Amino acid sequence: MARIVQKYGGTSVGDVERIRKVAARVARWREEGHEVVVVVSARGGVTNELLARAKALNPQPNEREMDLLLAVGEQETIALVAMALHALGVPAVSRTGAQAGILTDPDHTRARILRISGGDIGDALSRGEVVIVAGFQGANLDGQTTTLGRGGSDLSAIALAAALEADVCQIYTDVDGVYTADPRIVPDAKKIDAIGYEEMLELASSGSRVMQTRAVRFAQKYGVPFEVRSSFNDEPGTMVQEEVVSMEDVAVSGVALDRNQVKIVVSDIPDRPGTAARLFEALAADGVLVDMIVQNLGREGRANLTFTVPQEDAYRAEKAVRPLQDDFPDMRVDTYDRIAKLSVVGVGMRSHSGVAGRFFGALAAERINVQMISTSEIKISVVVAAEEADEAVRTVHRAFGLGGEPGAGAGTASEAAAGEPEPPQA
Amino acid sequence: MARIVQKYGGTSVGDVERIRKVAARVARWREEGHEVVVVVSARGGVTNELLARAKALNPQPNEREMDLLLAVGEQETIALVAMALHALGVPAVSRTGAQAGILTDPDHTRARILRISGGDIGDALSRGEVVIVAGFQGANLDGQTTTLGRGGSDLSAIALAAALEADVCQIYTDVDGVYTADPRIVPDAKKIDAIGYEEMLELASSGSRVMQTRAVRFAQKYGVPFEVRSSFNDEPGTMVQEEVVSMEDVAVSGVALDRNQVKIVVSDIPDRPGTAARLFEALAADGVLVDMIVQNLGREGRANLTFTVPQEDAYRAEKAVRPLQDDFPDMRVDTYDRIAKLSVVGVGMRSHSGVAGRFFGALAAERINVQMISTSEIKISVVVAAEEADEAVRTVHRAFGLGGEPGAGAGTASEAAAGEPEPPQA
Repeated sequence: MARIVQKYGGTSVGDVERIRKVAARVARWREEGHEVVVVVSARGGVTNELLARAKALNPQPNEREMDLLLAVGEQETIALVAMALHALGVPAVSRTGAQAGILTDPDHTRARILRISGGDIGDALSRGEVVIVAGFQGANLDGQTTTLGRGGSDLSAIALAAALEADVCQIYTDVDGVYTADPRIVPDAKKIDAIGYEEMLELASSGSRVMQTRAVRFAQKYGVPFEVRSSFNDEPGTMVQEEVVSMEDVAVSGVALDRNQVKIVVSDIPDRPGTAARLFEALAADGVLVDMIVQNLGREGRANLTFTVPQEDAYRAEKAVRPLQDDFPDMRVDTYDRIAKLSVVGVGMRSHSGVAGRFFGALAAERINVQMISTSEIKISVVVAAEEADEAVRTVHRAFGLGGEPGAGAGTASEAAAGEPEPPQA
Repeated sequence: MARIVQKYGGTSVGDVERIRKVAARVARWREEGHEVVVVVSARGGVTNELLARAKALNPQPNEREMDLLLAVGEQETIALVAMALHALGVPAVSRTGAQAGILTDPDHTRARILRISGGDIGDALSRGEVVIVAGFQGANLDGQTTTLGRGGSDLSAIALAAALEADVCQIYTDVDGVYTADPRIVPDAKKIDAIGYEEMLELASSGSRVMQTRAVRFAQKYGVPFEVRSSFNDEPGTMVQEEVVSMEDVAVSGVALDRNQVKIVVSDIPDRPGTAARLFEALAADGVLVDMIVQNLGREGRANLTFTVPQEDAYRAEKAVRPLQDDFPDMRVDTYDRIAKLSVVGVGMRSHSGVAGRFFGALAAERINVQMISTSEIKISVVVAAEEADEAVRTVHRAFGLGGEPGAGAGTASEAAAGEPEPPQA
């Protein structure tokens, strides 16, 4: 018997029929003798509808009211899932975030979890009940409803798994697990059976949209093993856990592609100490998330700085940089959006040498030009032209021998529909 | 300066545009220096959608989960109304039923209000804020969300008005107020300026669907004056208040028609003590609400009992009566659904004699047959054939001189869309 926290996203509970299937799945786990806590998102589309109504009434809605509004979506789902379980004869009870004792800071719409008591969930489990918890939401010390921001439901599930000392947390999505590459691009991409937190983080921050990094970081911090698996079949998914030595046998675990970046080149700025600092302080002040950075020298004591930002931050980034023109009259700013970031990730890089060589060699053999390079201990990322990106992924995937039988995992995985179908939640 | 509680039903907050109009109206009252508390229902249609989903998943949904589910509707509206007020520069804050301190018994889906503290509403009003409260919902002593059942939002508003010692409670609906008769049937029906609680109760229980009796009774008990008025114009509506002497100048205030009843005739039962008791105990045990009752003697020591029940209770009523056949083998049960109940109501009946005579005389002159009669101190009700009902209303309305200028109030009032558009709430 195990204690399991299961999380179902908006697509998995999208309509009555799918809710019924979730209930049937939960019932099967319980029949096998497990204690089950279910964390659910709002039905797919609901959060966007609520947001649209709010924006129509007020372009800058008050954040406290926004949280009260958005919490509605999950509150509907928990009640419906409980009813569906009752219809199968399974004792079940729903809990809002507040009732589950998810205490957050007062920072509405992007609250951070301070502590989780679990409320009376332990008692309910001992009575043999399934407990359904509203993901994405909590309450602050004043009892006001808060929401956790993007990826919040995954975070709720993993945090509850930690608080309840669950044996495992299962993240049900519409993909089978984490793949060596996007199967739409690489037909022989393979599902990865097990992966370390660090690799998962690098993959997540490199464009693999299965999960937000925030939930993965929380799982890593509290040592919560979790499994990414499909809510449409019963196959095992990908276990994400502490690294084990055997993982290092493989030099590279996966190849990720992020098409959601733009490259900004700031050229002809003075090559003296402090220039880069002023630039990136200006960007940080406007909340722009800078990813890759490359600096090189230009002509006559001038420097060029090239960096990438998420597409949605591009306009703000340009605006933040503009005022520097006053001090750097020769400065030029150019934005390139036809780029993609390709990354290879693997804890094995620590012990395997020659990964970089094989990587750049493979790209060079296919005459794919590398515009930027950035590395971490377990990752190498490059920026390539958008139109060469798919070919680059296939080339690298082949070079590291990641493929299985052709077409093995293709079809079910979909980047667009994966993991986080609704902007503000998981 | 007055303290005002305003209640807006599901139709008034049906979409973003209407919510904007509600906000504009609230803002006007506040600009005039009043303290305003706004009680809102779920957007029209939302509650029915939620119910449909629940029923699809479970024909007999758990009532605790049902309350959590239904409370979602009003929670959405309060947040949206608050945002709409902010957009107009009006400081406003929303409160769920629980946050407004609406404490109920634990009887889910039909909870009764035990006590209202008002939470911090008084403080918010002193700070000049408009407070928007979710109608229809409260919380029990365990902090579980409860709902108040049919007519719940009207009740929330009136109960809050009592707790906050408001000067008046305004019930905004899609009708202009209470009319002397349904203007669709009687073109010269007039809006009533003021009416007593008792008359309003009799009208409400006689088929005038402007408000549920429950909220009216609460208003009467705590002496809360309230006004039924339109959310589509700025005309004064109908004040409902303690009776004043001048009201007695008018023998009859209004004529109501209830087409939602069926007549059940139980014939050839023994004419001995206890027979009627057994019959009505059986009905009560099955929760059937019996309205009018007439008993008369048949042949050979047998009796007939005729009673009316709401249409939705007809099947249950017949089922409840059937088992009596074992003891009363000759018993026959016949159901007639082509009937209507017509009532004249007026506190003036207490002091004016001859009301009954004029009433029956007018019907007789038009050869309208009266099938059943029932009276109270301020009401006379009769059952007539459904096809004669409209003519009967016009006849009686004319006989008591209730009409104004022809067509005065017609057009805006609508029985079908009035007051309580959604089954489980106000």
